[in-house]
Amino acid sequence: MSAGPAPIYPPDPWAIRETSFDPAQLRRNETIFSLGNGHLGMRGNFEEGFPGGVVGTYINGFYEETPITYGEIAYGYAKNRQVMLNVADGKAITLSVGGERFDLSSGTILSSERTLDLARGVLHRRVAWRSPAGREVEIRVRRLVSLSRRHAAVIDWSVSLLRGSCPIEVESAIDGSVGNQAAADDPRIGTRFAERPLRTMQREAEGARGILVQKTRMTGFVLACAMDHVVESGALEQGPAVACSTSPDRASVTVQAQAREGSTLRLVKYLAYCTSREFPGESCARRAREEVTRTRQAGIETLLEEQAQTLSLFWHAADVQIEGDDSLQQGVRFNLFSLFQSAGRDGRTSIAAKGLTGEGYEGHYFWDTEIYVLPFFIYSNPQIARALVAYRLGILGKARARAAEMSQRGALFPWRTIGGEETSPYYPAGTAQYHINADIVHAFRTYILATGDRTLLSEGGAEMLFETARLWADLGTRIPRRNGAFCINEVTGPDEYSALVNNNAYTNLMARENLEYAAATAEEMRRDNAAELERIFAAIGLSGAEIEEWRRAAETMYLPLDRELGIWLQDDGFLDRAPWDFAGTPPESYPLLLHYHPLVIYRHQVLKQPDVVLAQVLLGHRFSMAEKKRNYDFYNPLTTGDSSLSPCIQCVAAAELGYIDAAYEYFSRTARMDLDDVNGNAGDGIHTAAMAGTWVSLVQGFAGMRDIGGRLSFKPRLPGSWICLRFRLQFRDRLLQVTIRRQTVTCDLLEGDPLDISIRGKDLRPAPGRPITESLLPTLECVIFDLDGVITDTAEMHFQAWSRLASEIGLPFDRTVNEELRGVGRGKSLEIILRNAGRTLPEEEKRKLAERKNSSYLELIRSITPSDLLPGVEGLLRRLREKGIRIALASASRNAPQIVERLGIGGMLDHVVDASTIVRGKPDPEVFLRAAESLGIPFENCAGVEDAKAGIQAIKAAGMFAAGIGRDLPGADWLVASTDKLAFDELDTRYGTWSRAWIG
Amino acid sequence: MSAGPAPIYPPDPWAIRETSFDPAQLRRNETIFSLGNGHLGMRGNFEEGFPGGVVGTYINGFYEETPITYGEIAYGYAKNRQVMLNVADGKAITLSVGGERFDLSSGTILSSERTLDLARGVLHRRVAWRSPAGREVEIRVRRLVSLSRRHAAVIDWSVSLLRGSCPIEVESAIDGSVGNQAAADDPRIGTRFAERPLRTMQREAEGARGILVQKTRMTGFVLACAMDHVVESGALEQGPAVACSTSPDRASVTVQAQAREGSTLRLVKYLAYCTSREFPGESCARRAREEVTRTRQAGIETLLEEQAQTLSLFWHAADVQIEGDDSLQQGVRFNLFSLFQSAGRDGRTSIAAKGLTGEGYEGHYFWDTEIYVLPFFIYSNPQIARALVAYRLGILGKARARAAEMSQRGALFPWRTIGGEETSPYYPAGTAQYHINADIVHAFRTYILATGDRTLLSEGGAEMLFETARLWADLGTRIPRRNGAFCINEVTGPDEYSALVNNNAYTNLMARENLEYAAATAEEMRRDNAAELERIFAAIGLSGAEIEEWRRAAETMYLPLDRELGIWLQDDGFLDRAPWDFAGTPPESYPLLLHYHPLVIYRHQVLKQPDVVLAQVLLGHRFSMAEKKRNYDFYNPLTTGDSSLSPCIQCVAAAELGYIDAAYEYFSRTARMDLDDVNGNAGDGIHTAAMAGTWVSLVQGFAGMRDIGGRLSFKPRLPGSWICLRFRLQFRDRLLQVTIRRQTVTCDLLEGDPLDISIRGKDLRPAPGRPITESLLPTLECVIFDLDGVITDTAEMHFQAWSRLASEIGLPFDRTVNEELRGVGRGKSLEIILRNAGRTLPEEEKRKLAERKNSSYLELIRSITPSDLLPGVEGLLRRLREKGIRIALASASRNAPQIVERLGIGGMLDHVVDASTIVRGKPDPEVFLRAAESLGIPFENCAGVEDAKAGIQAIKAAGMFAAGIGRDLPGADWLVASTDKLAFDELDTRYGTWSRAWIG
Repeated sequence: MSAGPAPIYPPDPWAIRETSFDPAQLRRNETIFSLGNGHLGMRGNFEEGFPGGVVGTYINGFYEETPITYGEIAYGYAKNRQVMLNVADGKAITLSVGGERFDLSSGTILSSERTLDLARGVLHRRVAWRSPAGREVEIRVRRLVSLSRRHAAVIDWSVSLLRGSCPIEVESAIDGSVGNQAAADDPRIGTRFAERPLRTMQREAEGARGILVQKTRMTGFVLACAMDHVVESGALEQGPAVACSTSPDRASVTVQAQAREGSTLRLVKYLAYCTSREFPGESCARRAREEVTRTRQAGIETLLEEQAQTLSLFWHAADVQIEGDDSLQQGVRFNLFSLFQSAGRDGRTSIAAKGLTGEGYEGHYFWDTEIYVLPFFIYSNPQIARALVAYRLGILGKARARAAEMSQRGALFPWRTIGGEETSPYYPAGTAQYHINADIVHAFRTYILATGDRTLLSEGGAEMLFETARLWADLGTRIPRRNGAFCINEVTGPDEYSALVNNNAYTNLMARENLEYAAATAEEMRRDNAAELERIFAAIGLSGAEIEEWRRAAETMYLPLDRELGIWLQDDGFLDRAPWDFAGTPPESYPLLLHYHPLVIYRHQVLKQPDVVLAQVLLGHRFSMAEKKRNYDFYNPLTTGDSSLSPCIQCVAAAELGYIDAAYEYFSRTARMDLDDVNGNAGDGIHTAAMAGTWVSLVQGFAGMRDIGGRLSFKPRLPGSWICLRFRLQFRDRLLQVTIRRQTVTCDLLEGDPLDISIRGKDLRPAPGRPITESLLPTLECVIFDLDGVITDTAEMHFQAWSRLASEIGLPFDRTVNEELRGVGRGKSLEIILRNAGRTLPEEEKRKLAERKNSSYLELIRSITPSDLLPGVEGLLRRLREKGIRIALASASRNAPQIVERLGIGGMLDHVVDASTIVRGKPDPEVFLRAAESLGIPFENCAGVEDAKAGIQAIKAAGMFAAGIGRDLPGADWLVASTDKLAFDELDTRYGTWSRAWIG
Repeated sequence: MSAGPAPIYPPDPWAIRETSFDPAQLRRNETIFSLGNGHLGMRGNFEEGFPGGVVGTYINGFYEETPITYGEIAYGYAKNRQVMLNVADGKAITLSVGGERFDLSSGTILSSERTLDLARGVLHRRVAWRSPAGREVEIRVRRLVSLSRRHAAVIDWSVSLLRGSCPIEVESAIDGSVGNQAAADDPRIGTRFAERPLRTMQREAEGARGILVQKTRMTGFVLACAMDHVVESGALEQGPAVACSTSPDRASVTVQAQAREGSTLRLVKYLAYCTSREFPGESCARRAREEVTRTRQAGIETLLEEQAQTLSLFWHAADVQIEGDDSLQQGVRFNLFSLFQSAGRDGRTSIAAKGLTGEGYEGHYFWDTEIYVLPFFIYSNPQIARALVAYRLGILGKARARAAEMSQRGALFPWRTIGGEETSPYYPAGTAQYHINADIVHAFRTYILATGDRTLLSEGGAEMLFETARLWADLGTRIPRRNGAFCINEVTGPDEYSALVNNNAYTNLMARENLEYAAATAEEMRRDNAAELERIFAAIGLSGAEIEEWRRAAETMYLPLDRELGIWLQDDGFLDRAPWDFAGTPPESYPLLLHYHPLVIYRHQVLKQPDVVLAQVLLGHRFSMAEKKRNYDFYNPLTTGDSSLSPCIQCVAAAELGYIDAAYEYFSRTARMDLDDVNGNAGDGIHTAAMAGTWVSLVQGFAGMRDIGGRLSFKPRLPGSWICLRFRLQFRDRLLQVTIRRQTVTCDLLEGDPLDISIRGKDLRPAPGRPITESLLPTLECVIFDLDGVITDTAEMHFQAWSRLASEIGLPFDRTVNEELRGVGRGKSLEIILRNAGRTLPEEEKRKLAERKNSSYLELIRSITPSDLLPGVEGLLRRLREKGIRIALASASRNAPQIVERLGIGGMLDHVVDASTIVRGKPDPEVFLRAAESLGIPFENCAGVEDAKAGIQAIKAAGMFAAGIGRDLPGADWLVASTDKLAFDELDTRYGTWSRAWIG
């Protein structure tokens, strides 16, 4: 990925400041200094313009359609493009000083500064300029898009003449001649229209007021933009004289004055944008005039105050503080502020991939809203979250029509859209992403569980659940070759570097949740609201039998697990693909999609974003820790991160697995993605999903927050350089503040009733005024023992059993050969004995012999007694129990339970891992992780005891403290020569040292 | 599929005649009455025009480029469309009679007839017309596009006034204002240009001559069209007066006269089209003038004579005669004539999907040329075949560049193109069809083997073989999960109803041939032409190691066989797909591609054309008969035939398997596809591949011709209604005539040295003047016996073995239970015994018991002696041997060889099928087909003898005569109560009766 330019903003925690003007950063800064309120967005263009800029003003959900031209069309392709329009520019204010036009591309910039105030929602600008003829002026601007008045914006613009005297002319306009940018060859940007999509219907100017009304050609949407001005002046020689005029696509107000040194001229420009998306088309002009009048009457100071007030409320719940890294702190605040500026609030709009700051992705809504952005709003601003959910309910009818067009029952939501119709022009990475259905349901469910607000169920929500479940039940099929499992074929998962695959794990898992949740909701409604359920059943022709079908589909859902690697396969064919030649791929060949044909990418094991890992982040309870670790370890090296949605998920997954440095690395890329222009395309607009990913990284990554089934849990750990991370969560009418310091976490319930949560597996119940502080220092809660060579030594019995077999069938065998069998399984051991004897046998025969040896062995272990416990073990176990430390056995031997019983220590063990369910043996950490998980203890609170190299590796891979018995055990945190040296006190001390180093 | 209108042409074997004018058939008839010579093509438009027609004139390989607009573009997509241009219309001749314009859409048609003379290559037209004001004229036209002068065409046009007197004006023009048709939503048609692709550079008229020169915008191609006229008249009152003029995009010559009843005016219009594809752009005009002058000087009668001469030569080698079906005869001749009119001859052009008759598929060349069309030309006109092969060699450089763009080594030929660049705008059914490489090599190899002409190897052919092999070696990968087999992933096979699959069987098989042939050719060249090989090695940086790689790739090629079904899987995922609901698909929903989204189609087991079946037609020697039959039986019901390329392949496969009625049905759809407008789109142009498929159906289907490794073989069988099928083949400087009658086939070597061929497995050597006639009546050559119950009865021994086992392990067992075991295998028998005993056992245990029973059985059969032969068997076997009839044993028992030895008949058997290699037991015909194949005997020359229902079914499925022993054996052709009734004489008689019925 391209590194992008170096950071250019001083790391002020509450402001983004540009202290000099660099034309090379023009478009990026237009994006960064954008203002918006979820309805109206304005790019940070200079009022007077600058060559090469993108003069941008956008209304959320205000779009034009244009037919998609395909190289070759086929049935069911998306018909029309929908493009969020770049509408009339109300920011335009030009200045002429003594006949010279103020323009930063001419003359000399004496000073230039812009500041975006994240606390107050105002963009400040101050520039001093010397004209080519030597006239000097200072211009000061304050600009805001009102967060409390959705149609309103204001620009407080003033000029001072610094020297001499001359005439000054200021023109403030609504410029309706702007339009959307042209397309490039980059599929991530938009497309050109055949003709200008907006036609001017009306233009008027009167006094200091003006209005422009425009209408789209195909969608027939109307937009009215009205302006009004308050003109003030000081120390003028003459004037000010105000005039107005209109010209094609333009309304303008001109102020002329004769100025002298120290003269100032100030225009406060009030703007209102009203559209037929809210009002009848014919009343838009009137509405805009009324709105602008109201705003002018309120006055700029009131607007500023309202703005500060609104933001204060926002930050009250949403702020996230990072102590110890001002640059990341700034990145985080900027991102959350941008999300607040971008999200639709009216239930008819959502949040565009680039917010309201640019034209990338044509202003479309994707799954980004549901999977990335909604968590932030659900837990910080449920009202906005509700509106975003409602948007999907509003387009359910269109999703139903789309399903029919795709030959399916139920509803299929569009992969990308504004108005609700599918508009993705490349179906393999568009319509084929059926998972959008389940993503929407996932967010819906999270919203309901986190807010407790079930009202949406009656407002289309239940219907949406049923229709999406219906689609899945109809889309999948029971495939005989897969033992009749329910398979979902020919889909594309979130990772678009594979396409049109069978049984994408993410899709199948999420579809299963969708099916189950729909069925469960129907059941709940039958209990709680049967009449409503009956109404819906009748309306959409649903029956109980169909719901049974959903359950069966969910139960028999095919889940592509690979037994050998112990991972979840991204899809059926993943291991059929060739490895990608990462070593031979130069940095400039990323992102791959711009340098390789899709066929080449699809043919290889390479990921744009990690699909299975995302599933384990969203549905963590469906995966064991061992699976999570193996999945991450397998897929992460194959992940290019070419998608901006990738690093935040990698961060959360890495944090959960204890890969704290990797987590920090991914977080850094997410947190300042746009400020640092990491992907080199910030000029096209912000990356809203990645911004929300910042919040996800902090709250779900470093704080380890999970919300499974409506219960919050945390497992915090700070990256090395941080002092404190603090954030708040709205949750079921509570406001919970979480403060994570290096060694402690404090939960403070600021509002609402006491709440059951858990921290690092410990159940807690913070109540108002009674903050709870928990230590984050790992404490020893469990010791997990290997069996053979640690608890007892059955090596001799194995030797005897092999000896017996060997003599019976006439094979040479002695203790030398036996040495080769250490830590080797039954089948392989026999191979070694046979090899030594120069013999081969048929498979069948070998199987029988191995069984025979096992029978002998089982006979021998019947002779085990407590006296066979290795020295010191019993004492250690007793001490552990006294101390309340739990004890688990992590042996790969299926005979372990019997041996333990015979040793007489069965009663002292809290858990014995069932070896028959282990997918991968040591050095895989599975057996240790399983022991910890079964006891509900975080892995870092465990110590493992092992006498073999592979065992120590497994313990370390599990993230635990490792005690080694013997010699030559690299990686062991504590090494003793024999079991009698395993003194509890020293273990405790050693663990304590390790634990303090771990927390850092 | 749509049935299309009913046949409208009387079934004249040498002509297509339209006896009245039906405006509804306008466009179809424009296609049918097209004329062409492989370079220049003219649609059968009326000279005077008609509303709604497509005025079409095309030059093979004369195209314009225009950028492809994608909904969403990605790296490596085809950049430009290439469109064969509809060029200046030289056919235009309008008539004005007393000021009324002659036009069939006004006035009254008194009579109208058009005839395309397939023997002489002339289109005749005669129409009598009464004007709205009552004037009556008769117009006669003869039109030809010269098959011997590539640039020339002539129209002999005359008018007679039938009544009264009036002024007559005739305007003959070159109209350069015509252009290509617009696009529809049907992806099979072409696309609109943004602006007219041809600009007029020059227009001149002088006397009776005129010229128009045009140039394309993007490709810069120049086209000059020149005309000259000879005007004759009779019985005019006044005139004729000849004038000329030009107007934008037009040059015209006008003839005025005062006519009276019986007056005639005749214009012979000579046309020449010359382009910068052959001549320097600036000389095109001069060339066209010279050409038209030469043609006028030769005169129409000479042209007609030349034309008849050329066609006589063509038909000499190419004609195919069907006696007994005039309608099919007409269809066949029309198709072959159309192919001759369409194929490029200059080595720089190929054959467009619609020939030179329409704009469908934009005039592109596909694999159609190599797989469907080339066989016809290779065996009837090797010169044209050579030119078509040379076309591919000419674009090798572009194929190399395309491979690089697709991140591959070697060369990748374009899926569709004119100029050589990839132009397919939908890569999943375009570029992903990598098989095009192997298709081209397959045709190249067939050409070389059939003609013996190896000169092309030094003209780029060897290089092409190496570069295509190189692509395959680089494209595929050894996949560990497939045991390191060489897999070719993410491709699309010929069946476009599956896309982006792994290991498409067709692709892998054809790629293997490509790799092997390239390696073998390198070896041959090293021996025969080492210097040339060294030159190529140096030129393309090739080494011997790379060739070894090709061999290894071929040897380890992954071939997706399904052991359970015994079929070749179309691709890895075929059985993962859901069944298509054929019953629920109404006829109007075909072709599926116009009614279902690709995702829906790809997700199901449904075929556009049968991919695996095509492979077994092209590479028959790579499949056993049993595999062919199972493949066909499995895939054929899943095949929609939505592709026009489908029926001919289904015909050949059906014919080989003895499904003669199905073969005939498919053939009928192919043979008159355009004449009867089977697909309803003949108006867009002919279907050249389906036309060639007619020849393939006849020669490879009904005549059963195969050319494996350069040796011709035949296995003819006529469909029920035919009396005779006769065709000729050019083969290695010979001309071989094959005449198939109902019961005989005659091979007559008309030219060249004696030739080794085989007919129905029999080697023959026809020589000039010594035709060989072979009977087609099946003769009994082999009797294939089942073992148990036919040769001997081991049932008793099985009973004893089971009894022993049952008593040993204490299970109840008696003769009643034993009855249930008849014809049942070992494992299943044990299940039955256990079920009867109400017992269950672990799998492992059951396996052991079954083995124990088999040991007992093997002991028992050691006691078999010749006296255990069933009565009459030995006598029958001796008679068969006396008669020279071969004897085979088709038993599913692995103990059969031992039993046969003990019975003392081992020496009498010609073949014992190895039961361990049989994939599917009876009733699958595999074991019988294998016996016949192993002895090289056609299945219909075999009789099978069986005592079980499943056995009789297997024999019948193998297409053999079935003798049954016992009772209740439906399907048996002859049933005897016991083996002693199996008299040879009666068998022979019964077989004879069956055989005569078989041949029909």
